[in-house]
Amino acid sequence: MPFTYNRSVRFQDTDAAGVVYFANILGICHEAYEESLEAAGINLKTFFSNPSVAFPIVHANVDFFRPVFCGDKLVVCLMPQKLGGEKFEIAYEISVSEVIVAKAITRHVCIDANSRTKQELPVEIANWLETNRRDTEEAERRKARETM
Amino acid sequence: MPFTYNRSVRFQDTDAAGVVYFANILGICHEAYEESLEAAGINLKTFFSNPSVAFPIVHANVDFFRPVFCGDKLVVCLMPQKLGGEKFEIAYEISVSEVIVAKAITRHVCIDANSRTKQELPVEIANWLETNRRDTEEAERRKARETM
Amino acid sequence: MPFTYNRSVRFQDTDAAGVVYFANILGICHEAYEESLEAAGINLKTFFSNPSVAFPIVHANVDFFRPVFCGDKLVVCLMPQKLGGEKFEIAYEISVSEVIVAKAITRHVCIDANSRTKQELPVEIANWLETNRRDTEEAERRKARETM
Amino acid sequence: MPFTYNRSVRFQDTDAAGVVYFANILGICHEAYEESLEAAGINLKTFFSNPSVAFPIVHANVDFFRPVFCGDKLVVCLMPQKLGGEKFEIAYEISVSEVIVAKAITRHVCIDANSRTKQELPVEIANWLETNRRDTEEAERRKARETM
Repeated sequence: MPFTYNRSVRFQDTDAAGVVYFANILGICHEAYEESLEAAGINLKTFFSNPSVAFPIVHANVDFFRPVFCGDKLVVCLMPQKLGGEKFEIAYEISVSEVIVAKAITRHVCIDANSRTKQELPVEIANWLETNRRDTEEAERRKARETM
Repeated sequence: MPFTYNRSVRFQDTDAAGVVYFANILGICHEAYEESLEAAGINLKTFFSNPSVAFPIVHANVDFFRPVFCGDKLVVCLMPQKLGGEKFEIAYEISVSEVIVAKAITRHVCIDANSRTKQELPVEIANWLETNRRDTEEAERRKARETM
Repeated sequence: MPFTYNRSVRFQDTDAAGVVYFANILGICHEAYEESLEAAGINLKTFFSNPSVAFPIVHANVDFFRPVFCGDKLVVCLMPQKLGGEKFEIAYEISVSEVIVAKAITRHVCIDANSRTKQELPVEIANWLETNRRDTEEAERRKARETM
Repeated sequence: MPFTYNRSVRFQDTDAAGVVYFANILGICHEAYEESLEAAGINLKTFFSNPSVAFPIVHANVDFFRPVFCGDKLVVCLMPQKLGGEKFEIAYEISVSEVIVAKAITRHVCIDANSRTKQELPVEIANWLETNRRDTEEAERRKARETM
């Protein structure tokens, strides 16, 4: 199964139109990424605060299919994928009551945090990518068998 | 036991100083309030989106005792209290590993959402206040007995 | 000239990596959109709070070329474009000291705020699109002449 | 004259109740503080990103007198005050059309950013405090004369 993250929509996520402010959906996707790293045994404080290696986002996109309201129970499904030696991409599917409300992508590049030059993905991230890839593939195979 | 809310510190909560941005602690307290309302059976979408009765915050304060970092596991303990017929106040204690890192208060007034004039607290909020008051008192009695 | 919006990067925009949190760049783009609407004489309170017609974002994307730091002076250049009768898209170029640091797009669809069904763009938005289109084209023609 | 900061209320500042989310007012106060530091010649990037000396907020409070809407033109008036050798406090008055809508306070302590131990306020901050104190006093004297 791909990694999933459960998240209630908070009052703070909404705007005067009564629904989630568009950019906040990307923030919620990033939370799923953090949760997934932690589930793989990665220490978030070391990873995100003053690290030697960083993974800044170089591209993000998001499509909205339905409005999302305060109190809605989001399920964020996260599917990361390696893109060469220094990059990876994460696809997210956000659902409420099993209906997809948004899809997003974030693309990350691995850099040395001081020089900000590109570098190879470290082992812990390569492992995290490998584990999640296998989980996603397994889920897809199962789904394919079920629909046959 | 007073109501408690568990919340991981997210990358988005932090600032360039490497710790949680001060105002975000108040946002996390509000999340605890939302979670507590929901635990009392209150529908958050109805309560917060286009309601007939609203509970705007007229005062808030927060004291910080220790820095809070990305990945920290916050436990927010919430203690609401009625203040006359139209007001209530919530005290929050935020801990990491059983050490209090911050304390906060939000004071809310009940208004008619259209006219924005004060009105009596509705039954569902009065009940929520009563339940939480009893839970808090019980915890205090137990603590008093333990320290005797 | 295309509409431009000047905005200092705030401490709150940054994260523990010391640079602007990725999703906040999209929020800054939306501010440029708001500023541009206001410059066209549109009342933002009426437009965004409980309107009869709304323009929710159905797609957004952003590319990051350079890190952005607290105190950086952003110049956001905004180029909106009509996409059929019910949609428009805004392209944003964000620069610091005349170097482009990010590019983004938001795509908006016009809906009846109550029924949430698509509807024709109202006159004030059609005019705003037309004015901005002409300003953008003029700037492009001037740039083309200069490079000849 | 005390330092003033002009700020339009953005869509992102609001919540599903149609007004500014309470904690965001404190963020806007912090922007006024940043703007005031910059006006005194302080480099914000150096000051806030990986500094040797930091000024974390140890206390904040805010009182709300009126709801604030998207598009409202806020004027934030900032009055800092030294509190002993290692602390200072800033009082903020936030107005819309010359009516005060909120008042807030942030209290800051000066620390060594690495050891996180208290230390004396550096010269640039002492100067900033002194300049702002004189400006505030002058404004008060003028106001007193006018009301006589």
